[in-house]
Amino acid sequence: MKRIAVILSGCGVFDGSEIHEAVLTLLALHRAGAAVQCFAPDQDQLHVVNHLSGEVTQEQRNVLVESARIARGDIKPITELDVAEFDGLILPGGFGAAKNLCDFAVAGSAMQIAPPVRRACQDFVAAGKPSGYLCIAPVLIPQVVGAGAIGTIGHDADTAAAFSEMGGKHQICPVAELALDSEHKVVSSPAYMLAGNIGEAADSIDALVTQVMDWA
Amino acid sequence: MKRIAVILSGCGVFDGSEIHEAVLTLLALHRAGAAVQCFAPDQDQLHVVNHLSGEVTQEQRNVLVESARIARGDIKPITELDVAEFDGLILPGGFGAAKNLCDFAVAGSAMQIAPPVRRACQDFVAAGKPSGYLCIAPVLIPQVVGAGAIGTIGHDADTAAAFSEMGGKHQICPVAELALDSEHKVVSSPAYMLAGNIGEAADSIDALVTQVMDWA
Repeated sequence: MKRIAVILSGCGVFDGSEIHEAVLTLLALHRAGAAVQCFAPDQDQLHVVNHLSGEVTQEQRNVLVESARIARGDIKPITELDVAEFDGLILPGGFGAAKNLCDFAVAGSAMQIAPPVRRACQDFVAAGKPSGYLCIAPVLIPQVVGAGAIGTIGHDADTAAAFSEMGGKHQICPVAELALDSEHKVVSSPAYMLAGNIGEAADSIDALVTQVMDWA
Repeated sequence: MKRIAVILSGCGVFDGSEIHEAVLTLLALHRAGAAVQCFAPDQDQLHVVNHLSGEVTQEQRNVLVESARIARGDIKPITELDVAEFDGLILPGGFGAAKNLCDFAVAGSAMQIAPPVRRACQDFVAAGKPSGYLCIAPVLIPQVVGAGAIGTIGHDADTAAAFSEMGGKHQICPVAELALDSEHKVVSSPAYMLAGNIGEAADSIDALVTQVMDWA
């Protein structure tokens, strides 16, 4: 049984993991026969957003604690993620990937990745093990993999430009297709960067999970 | 296109809607060709539970605002649910169904349903339109439908006994099967009351959605 680590970034599209993407990743991995363990950074969220009004609130929430909602409590701090115990890695999207795993949402191409997230992601590349990045999570790829790393965030011009400024090679990609960096076993797909509905998001995620499991 | 209303009860298995069940319901409805609108009561949650530790915290969260995380912001207060605009209704489970939609979690068979939830659910029965209840949500069925209503919460003895005490006819039901009250077009299935993994939950939900769409 292949073992896949999933890194979450909270619980909700505007301040954490995109919930549909996270759940559909877990479903696709289960159906592909993977054993899954979720991880998240044990840190405060950058924002708490009221998902009804869209407004930032004054609350404080913890990324690991909120991610535990998606994982039904079965989640570990990312500092416990040991690449030796896994065959692959997947990062769902949602603004949490750009607010909590790194600070792309506020710093753009001058962003920095949270150190334990960077370490975990780089460990998979260094070990020659596959990793999949969904939606906005591919903004991590240039700094994780290094210059020339291939990825997609769909076709948003500003985000694509930032991807290139950080040294990546951005590929425009339709929702259900993949951007493949075969040299580094890194795959990305747009999911809700482009999906107009949950079915399109599922197709995007299913394709990515199939590729990660194929490489794993 | 059939129009299905989905009633959420927060965002997280221990104090709100079970997230996997809610998302998989939305996916199954989309794939079945339904147009979906989510609703939730605009009220405080009974509890906020830290899903990492399992402990009740001192926070206050609003059911509608937290449910909006699952709905990506596209949700309305349940007081705006007009049965005339829909062909069917589905309630995912999670403790929120037993803590926020009614007080079963603390009152057992002496429970009361939140008035706008009771009104919405009863409207579908009165209109001869189908409704589906997942996981623990079927505890609502006896009071919504009345004496003799058929439903399942899987095979948990205490919950089944409470279901009967409230006047319902409880059916023991395997995870991927359905308890049908064809007279009232009410269907229930166990989902995470019995599911050992997300794939079993999906099978349970897919079966229920198929039945609701067939009746709708």
